[in-house]
Amino acid sequence: MDYKEMSLKLHEENEGKIEVTSKVPVKDKNDLSVVYTPGVAEPCKKIHENIEDVYKYTAKKNLVAVVTDGTAVLGLGDIGPEAAMPVMEGKSILFKKFGNVDAFPICLKTKDVDEIVKTVKYLSPTFGGINLEDISAPRCFEIERRLKEELDIPVFHDDQHGTAIVVLAGLINALKLVNKKIEEVKIVINGAGSAGISICKLLMAAGAKNIVMCDLKGALRQGEQWMNEAQSQIAKVTNRNLERGTIKDIIKGKDVFIGVSGPKVLTEEMVSTMNKDAIVFAMANPVPEILPEEALKGGARVVATGRSDYPNQINNVLVFPGIFRGALDVRAKAITEEMKLEAARAIASIVDDSELNEKCIIPDAFDKRVAEVVAKAVGEIAIKTGVSNLKK
Amino acid sequence: MDYKEMSLKLHEENEGKIEVTSKVPVKDKNDLSVVYTPGVAEPCKKIHENIEDVYKYTAKKNLVAVVTDGTAVLGLGDIGPEAAMPVMEGKSILFKKFGNVDAFPICLKTKDVDEIVKTVKYLSPTFGGINLEDISAPRCFEIERRLKEELDIPVFHDDQHGTAIVVLAGLINALKLVNKKIEEVKIVINGAGSAGISICKLLMAAGAKNIVMCDLKGALRQGEQWMNEAQSQIAKVTNRNLERGTIKDIIKGKDVFIGVSGPKVLTEEMVSTMNKDAIVFAMANPVPEILPEEALKGGARVVATGRSDYPNQINNVLVFPGIFRGALDVRAKAITEEMKLEAARAIASIVDDSELNEKCIIPDAFDKRVAEVVAKAVGEIAIKTGVSNLKK
Repeated sequence: MDYKEMSLKLHEENEGKIEVTSKVPVKDKNDLSVVYTPGVAEPCKKIHENIEDVYKYTAKKNLVAVVTDGTAVLGLGDIGPEAAMPVMEGKSILFKKFGNVDAFPICLKTKDVDEIVKTVKYLSPTFGGINLEDISAPRCFEIERRLKEELDIPVFHDDQHGTAIVVLAGLINALKLVNKKIEEVKIVINGAGSAGISICKLLMAAGAKNIVMCDLKGALRQGEQWMNEAQSQIAKVTNRNLERGTIKDIIKGKDVFIGVSGPKVLTEEMVSTMNKDAIVFAMANPVPEILPEEALKGGARVVATGRSDYPNQINNVLVFPGIFRGALDVRAKAITEEMKLEAARAIASIVDDSELNEKCIIPDAFDKRVAEVVAKAVGEIAIKTGVSNLKK
Repeated sequence: MDYKEMSLKLHEENEGKIEVTSKVPVKDKNDLSVVYTPGVAEPCKKIHENIEDVYKYTAKKNLVAVVTDGTAVLGLGDIGPEAAMPVMEGKSILFKKFGNVDAFPICLKTKDVDEIVKTVKYLSPTFGGINLEDISAPRCFEIERRLKEELDIPVFHDDQHGTAIVVLAGLINALKLVNKKIEEVKIVINGAGSAGISICKLLMAAGAKNIVMCDLKGALRQGEQWMNEAQSQIAKVTNRNLERGTIKDIIKGKDVFIGVSGPKVLTEEMVSTMNKDAIVFAMANPVPEILPEEALKGGARVVATGRSDYPNQINNVLVFPGIFRGALDVRAKAITEEMKLEAARAIASIVDDSELNEKCIIPDAFDKRVAEVVAKAVGEIAIKTGVSNLKK
C-alpha cells in the first residue's frame, strides 16, 4: 500500500484526526460541581470582573484557530472549506505534537474578505492566536493586515511567514557553509505569490540587499504594468538594477535561487550559469523546480527542497509550533518581524558547526529541540521589544 | 476548601479544561507523509469530488460547536463571551465524558442576531452539529429558528430543549408513581422565558392538554398586553379557561408545578392548595422555588430540583450527550419533536418499576446507561421518520 492509500485508510478508520478531550477528571458529582455547575460560576464571575482573567482560568491562552476558506489548499487550489478540513486537522495535530499548542480547524464557508475578517473577530474570545492557512492571494494579505490591526492576539499566515522563516534559517546556514554574506549575495526568488513576497521581505529584514523576484511573466521590475498591487509594492524595493527577462535570464550570475513556483521550471543548464558555490532551494511540492541530483550536476553546492526523501527539507513544521508556543507563553500581542528573525536564527542555530555540511543545513522535522529553542527565542525578543502582555 | 475555591483552583492549575489532541500517531517522517503532506491531499481530493466524503475522512461527523454570545450565562446574565468560556468548556468535557462527542466552545463577540446566524453558517463546514448555549431570549428563538432553516446539521438550544426533555422524563415517571395521566393533569409552569416555553411545548407534544404558564406579571392569557411575541404565541394554546392572577392563585387545584423561575417564590402554604399527590419540580438554581422539605410538608408527594444534594436532580447532562450522540450517529439533519419525545421516554425508561419511588423518578447523572439508551432511541426514530442522512 502506498502513502496515498495509507492516508485514505488512516483518515477513514480514525474518522479524522483530532478530538477534543478533558484535562480534568469528571468521576463523580463532586467533580461535576467543580468543573460545571455550580462551581463553574466562580471563574465566570472573576473573568466578568476582570477580562484579563480569561487567560488565567480558561484554555484560551493555549488555543489557536487554524483558519481557512479552502481557496489555496496545498497545490490543489480552491477546493472549498470541507475539502480543506484534512489539512487543517493535520496542522492541528502537528501544533499539538511539536508545540503542545491546542489548535482547532476553522473552515469557513465564505470567500468574502470582509466576512472572513468579521468572523475571525467574533471568534476571538475563544482563542489566544490565529493561524491563517491556505487562503489565496491577494486576499490573504488584506485579511492578515486587517486582523493584525484589529486583534490584540497574534495573527500569523503560515504559508507566507512560516515558509519565509524556514527559508531564512536554511539560508543562514547555507551562506555560512559557502562563506558568503547575506548583505552581499545576489538572490533570485522564483514565484511572486504570497510565499515568495513574504520570503523576499524577511530576507531583506535580515540584511539581503540584492534580490530579484520572478514570476511567469518575468522579473518584477518597477513600472511593469502586469504586476498586482503586492508585486508593485515589492518591485519598488527589489531589482534595483532593473533586470529584465524570465528566470532563464535572471538566474545568471546569482548566488542563490529560491523557488516557490512550479515543477521542473529550472534546468541543469540554468543552474550552471549561477555563481560559484550556488545555493538552490527548490521548494515546489511534490515535484520541485529541479531535482537535487540535477542541480548538483549543474554546479550547485547546497540544494534544499520541500521533500522528506532528500536532504535539507524546508518544512514549515520547524516554525509554526515553536513560534506560536513562544508567542502564547509570553502573551505576545502580535508576531513581529523581530520575532520572525529570531525564530529563523534559532532554527539555524540548532545545526552546530560540527554538523553543518552540504547535506545538513537545517534541522530534521522531528528534532525535538527545535520548537523549544524557537519558543524561547521568540518569547525573549517579544518581551524585550514590548510585544508581550505579561505583567512584569 | 469549598467548591467555589476548588473550582478557581482547578481552572487556574489546569489552564482551563479542554485540549485538542490527536487520534493518530505522528512518530516519524512516514507518519508525517500520511497524516500531513503529501498524503493528506488524497482525502482532500476525495472530498472535493464528493462533498459527502467530509463525513468519511474528517472529524466533522463527531464535532459539535458549543455556541454562545455570553448573554444569559447560568444565573449570571449577560457577562460576555470571555466570561462564558468556563461554562462552554465545561459543556465540552461533559459532551466527551458522557457522549464521546467532540465539542468545542465558540464564544462570539457579537450579540447581533444576523451576525450570529451568519457566523455559525460560515463555521458549519467544520461541525456535525450546533449546540446553542446561554443565549438570552427572545434572540435565542430567532437564532435557532433561522439556523434550523438554513443548515442541514442538527441545531439544538440546550437551555430550552435539554431542560424540556429531562422535565418530561421526570414527569413521565412521577405521573406513573401517582397514577395520573399526562392528558388529564393540570399543570402550572412558573417562568415564561425560553426554558418555560420550551417545556410547555414539549409537554403538549407529549399529550398534556391543561397547562397554565405564569410569569412575574401573572398568568399568560390570550389578549394580555404585557406579553412578548413568544409568550403571546404560547398563550393561544394554553390557559384555555382564561385563568387570571399570579402563581399564588393559579397553583390552586393543580396537579403539577414546574418552576424555571427564581428562588423561594413558592411557599408550603401555596403547595398545600394543590391537588392530592402533587408533583413539584422546583428547578431554580442554586436556590429552588421551594426547598424539598417544605414542599413535602405542604403535601407534595414527588419533589424534584436542579440540585445534586437532593433526590431527583433534573440535570441536562442526562440529555445533551445522548441526543447529540444519537443524532450524529445517524447523521440526522435536525433534532425533531419526535426525537425529543423519544429521548425523554428513553431517560424515563432507565428507572424501572422496581426502582421507581418518590425519591427516584430520574436516573443519576452518572448512570452510564443513559446516553447510550438515549442515543439509540433518538437514532432509531430519526431513521424511522426520515431525518437521517445515512444511506440505506
